[in-house]
Amino acid sequence: MFRTNTCGELRLTDAGKKTTLAGWVQRVRKMGGMTFVDLRDRYGITQVVFNNEIDADLCEQANKLGREYVIQVTGTVSERSNKNKNIPTGEIEIVADHLRVLNSSEVPPFTIEDESDGGDDIRMKYRYLDLRRTPVRKNLELRHRMTMEVRRYLDSKGFLEIETPMLVGSTPEGARDFVVPSRMNPGQFYALPQSPQTLKQLLMVSGMDRYFQIVKCFRDEDLRADRQPEFTQIDCEMSFVEQDDIINLFEGMAKHLFKTIRGIELTEPFIRMPWSEAMKYYGSDKPDLRFDMRFVELMDILKGYGFSVFDNAAYIGGICAKGAASYTRKQIDQLTDFVKRPQIGAKGLVYARVEPDGTVKSSVDKFYSQEVLQQMKQAFNAEPGDLILILSGDDAMKTRKQLNELRLEMGTRLGLRDKNKFACLWVVDFPMFEWSDEEQRLMAMHHPFTHPKDEDIAMLDTDPAAVRADAYDMVINGVEVGGGSIRIHDSQLQAKMFEILGFTPEKAQEQFGFLMNAFKFGAPPHGGLAYGLDRWVSLFAGLDSIRDCIAFPKNNSGRDVMLDAPAALDQKQLDELQLALDLKDK
Amino acid sequence: MFRTNTCGELRLTDAGKKTTLAGWVQRVRKMGGMTFVDLRDRYGITQVVFNNEIDADLCEQANKLGREYVIQVTGTVSERSNKNKNIPTGEIEIVADHLRVLNSSEVPPFTIEDESDGGDDIRMKYRYLDLRRTPVRKNLELRHRMTMEVRRYLDSKGFLEIETPMLVGSTPEGARDFVVPSRMNPGQFYALPQSPQTLKQLLMVSGMDRYFQIVKCFRDEDLRADRQPEFTQIDCEMSFVEQDDIINLFEGMAKHLFKTIRGIELTEPFIRMPWSEAMKYYGSDKPDLRFDMRFVELMDILKGYGFSVFDNAAYIGGICAKGAASYTRKQIDQLTDFVKRPQIGAKGLVYARVEPDGTVKSSVDKFYSQEVLQQMKQAFNAEPGDLILILSGDDAMKTRKQLNELRLEMGTRLGLRDKNKFACLWVVDFPMFEWSDEEQRLMAMHHPFTHPKDEDIAMLDTDPAAVRADAYDMVINGVEVGGGSIRIHDSQLQAKMFEILGFTPEKAQEQFGFLMNAFKFGAPPHGGLAYGLDRWVSLFAGLDSIRDCIAFPKNNSGRDVMLDAPAALDQKQLDELQLALDLKDK
Repeated sequence: MFRTNTCGELRLTDAGKKTTLAGWVQRVRKMGGMTFVDLRDRYGITQVVFNNEIDADLCEQANKLGREYVIQVTGTVSERSNKNKNIPTGEIEIVADHLRVLNSSEVPPFTIEDESDGGDDIRMKYRYLDLRRTPVRKNLELRHRMTMEVRRYLDSKGFLEIETPMLVGSTPEGARDFVVPSRMNPGQFYALPQSPQTLKQLLMVSGMDRYFQIVKCFRDEDLRADRQPEFTQIDCEMSFVEQDDIINLFEGMAKHLFKTIRGIELTEPFIRMPWSEAMKYYGSDKPDLRFDMRFVELMDILKGYGFSVFDNAAYIGGICAKGAASYTRKQIDQLTDFVKRPQIGAKGLVYARVEPDGTVKSSVDKFYSQEVLQQMKQAFNAEPGDLILILSGDDAMKTRKQLNELRLEMGTRLGLRDKNKFACLWVVDFPMFEWSDEEQRLMAMHHPFTHPKDEDIAMLDTDPAAVRADAYDMVINGVEVGGGSIRIHDSQLQAKMFEILGFTPEKAQEQFGFLMNAFKFGAPPHGGLAYGLDRWVSLFAGLDSIRDCIAFPKNNSGRDVMLDAPAALDQKQLDELQLALDLKDK
Repeated sequence: MFRTNTCGELRLTDAGKKTTLAGWVQRVRKMGGMTFVDLRDRYGITQVVFNNEIDADLCEQANKLGREYVIQVTGTVSERSNKNKNIPTGEIEIVADHLRVLNSSEVPPFTIEDESDGGDDIRMKYRYLDLRRTPVRKNLELRHRMTMEVRRYLDSKGFLEIETPMLVGSTPEGARDFVVPSRMNPGQFYALPQSPQTLKQLLMVSGMDRYFQIVKCFRDEDLRADRQPEFTQIDCEMSFVEQDDIINLFEGMAKHLFKTIRGIELTEPFIRMPWSEAMKYYGSDKPDLRFDMRFVELMDILKGYGFSVFDNAAYIGGICAKGAASYTRKQIDQLTDFVKRPQIGAKGLVYARVEPDGTVKSSVDKFYSQEVLQQMKQAFNAEPGDLILILSGDDAMKTRKQLNELRLEMGTRLGLRDKNKFACLWVVDFPMFEWSDEEQRLMAMHHPFTHPKDEDIAMLDTDPAAVRADAYDMVINGVEVGGGSIRIHDSQLQAKMFEILGFTPEKAQEQFGFLMNAFKFGAPPHGGLAYGLDRWVSLFAGLDSIRDCIAFPKNNSGRDVMLDAPAALDQKQLDELQLALDLKDK
């Protein structure tokens, strides 16, 4: 061992001890006849001091050290005269009597500090240096602790972690698969799993009863800030359960994580909000409940007064921003620009201020009497000083989604989205299907294995779009951290579902035959859920992107710029795989 | 919840309780006016009884149940008159008053019993049924417990589990990679990692200090019984350590696993055997030390008596099988056939029996006097009743490997390889390089990042083949369960190593530039090891193949016969990937 202690370990009570430390040179400072070296490892920083008067040679060696050199130092733990209250080792220093350079370092391309001067690209190229920075390292430590606690909790509840294969079959439905050519079976391909969904259902058929796995999943999609081509799921499944059993057990897991990881004791049950309510009041299936600002529908109040935009609208609704009546014209123009951005797509924004005397002044005053505006004020329970913001449109669902964006923006502007406050809920009673304009057919909102609500099964024939599912999402601070459903365990109901989704029996058999066949041999009632680990860690770490809780993430082109992957293959490899490139754009 | 209790839970102390169970019908028996159903779940089997006199309808329903039906039963826990001492629930039965069929089952294609009538192929096709069998399920339970304990141990020692990417760059050195075409980067491919070797070294450069990961790895090799295209490693790396630190820590982990998983307390330190000794005395770098039967070299004793086979041999050596002198001519012929099999490749076998009176009778008596044979007997410390078996050849290493096979065969035949007995050791001081006849150059025996022993570094220039490495394998019962090494952390030494291995500087830079560059920024001394989880679980489970401790294994053609993967892709998928098939053999 190159050390007797770590750089985060020694305290005043160790004063007088002989110690050997090893780590990286964070900083070298010369003061008077002394040279101070901040020595860093994963566990902390310890100050090492070299005294020119006592050992000039040694001090000279220390003066030659550069940033990020790897050194081994032996010395005596001593009380510091100039204590640093900001670090746990700040009361001591090591008076060095021996120094060994274990490795030198070129000058790093950016500073290895909490706030680095390196841009995104260079930090990704030298990710191994970026990971030396405390905030990045702490994210990985958090991730480790979270997965340890997830495993501890699920193990205590009788779950078995079972590995499912990474080389599976391709399923052209849904998102795109990454595929893997098989050399031993020329012309054939494996696919990397988008999730172990069907495999975990087979494990239930096999009687494993309670399964989980923390597992890599793959999706070949065009990337966004919170998407990676490979991501990690906490994947779970249980047999002989109903929806409430699953929700209760995993709410317990969430509370366990909040307590052990964040030190937050959540004693109340999570709200369970039907999907229809979430859409009605928040315009989102993942409402951020850290703040209220519920939608108020204004169709009854504001229609029929000659304002054609509202008179022709299929939906009029608004939010009340407490205390924002003081917003300037410029600030309101910013909000108007915000909702008119193509990603959001509203045509305009109507606003109304509640004045100190209780009267309402709006941007559409010429159409509305103070009496109507007062009715509106009451609908919002608005008070003097509040700002009411209103959107309308000819598609109620689309307008609600626009209003959701505005609500979140106002929440951010008003400082209502504190990263250290957590609002958890379950969104339940999702619709079974959603209409796809692109495909011109009903698509499974969750996936084709989701069980419809028993009381809605009769409607599968008459009004499938109205059928609700035994599906549920766990939402924290407006982020869907996980979701799941009760699954169909009856092969006839499963066949009916495929029929509604437009599968021919042959196609259903070709793609999911292995699962439907398995269901013929005594499938138990079962259900489960999957959490996005990356998202959950980001949430606990207060990150804006999942990238910083991943050791070696890919960029938005799916590249690992550090490894320079993907890359061209040797011709020999292509030949062995009996594959040829067929490049369209050169 | 469909049940109040599991099928493995109820005891005589529960008698009188109302209970609801759910599970699979293992067996239905009619006896007198009673119908007995053995109800099975993951936790056990409970007998359910239906009484025709009390409820004829209910009993009739029970009579209609088939094997593997999924049912829910409510009833009262009662003491059995005819107790079954073989199962923990054998003292009670459930007197049913309610029965609900949750799912029916077709007749399974093989019996779901500890000993099944199903062949390998059909059990793999219906693996979800095979997994219902207790011995197979127990392997997965064991695997879960082992990974839990590995994580518990390593977490307690300050290791962080850090996920490394699955989509990395291809490295044409070594075994073949599985590759993944990138749609977003046409003509380029990712590779699936053969191991996270270079990534974990980068994590050490990044100061993570102690890393582990239980991780899937991929190798596109032609398969054997104990190989799978995807397999799982317990992958570990540590900084600021020397070989002994790693060996001690992971010996501690092995002992922790033996204790917690197998209930075996190993108090003695594991033997540390230099590779040269392992080869000399056991002809193997993974000797099975459950039994002795060390090789004895006989060159000095048996050369020069006119027996040309021996006189021309580069190696003569043998083993002494205690008490096997009674082997018949037929048994010895079998052994001769065994060593002459092409996989082993010996030309023949010489044997000698030690008679009750101490004289030695050999198959080559015409060449050797009793005096010489007695010298040989002494070299083996052989006693009356022992059988001496001798091989010779013109290549010492090859002959030793043949003798190793014979030794293992004799160990098996003499019952010396008890699966419940464990002999652990470290093989150390591996050679740095081995000569490849195929490539006509030195190859890294471990991998190119292995650190040579400090005292041998000077020989890198003069006699590289004699250089030993800081490399070590953990061997249990003749199985290499894991291995590792101290790594090079100096970019100049690493460059020299690539040179000896025949890399041009350009090629080294192209393939491993990211690692060598990283080493320029303060790489700490580091080392680690990786365990083969599948092998270790198999060993603890007493399995002959790793396949039975994997939920969904592939067959010897790399196929998942249950999923029917790999398979042909849709043309649309190939087009998106800008790939074409280039099949040579149609």
